[in-house]
Amino acid sequence: MADIKYEITGQFGKISESSKGWTKELNLISWNDRDPKYDIREWAPGHEKMGKGVTLTADELKELKRLLNEMDI
Amino acid sequence: MADIKYEITGQFGKISESSKGWTKELNLISWNDRDPKYDIREWAPGHEKMGKGVTLTADELKELKRLLNEMDI
Repeated sequence: MADIKYEITGQFGKISESSKGWTKELNLISWNDRDPKYDIREWAPGHEKMGKGVTLTADELKELKRLLNEMDI
Repeated sequence: MADIKYEITGQFGKISESSKGWTKELNLISWNDRDPKYDIREWAPGHEKMGKGVTLTADELKELKRLLNEMDI
């Protein structure tokens, strides 16, 4: 993924941290200088490497919030 | 990903749908007969193909819900 340029423009918190220090985070990320999107993804310590994740628009994040608030969790 | 066995054991809703019919969904999925995990992922119509996504434990989903409810969205 060396050719992907990104900038973390917002950080909303850590979802979890593994024993090896990788964190699952909710961020706002601009990919290749485009408008930033919300992003749920695993990161190595210091954001040195990124793992798998999913990007979400603002509307998708709102819908996800709505779904979670309907669930008995 | 032909060697990955999975079963969707819970469906909690659609986050969005693209013009080509792919949906972003929140599901509970058992991967390779292991205990099911929550999963945010894109799917082709009829779940025929899966796209990128992220899996979450119950604790991670709860923490994500807490973060989203702290945000002004």
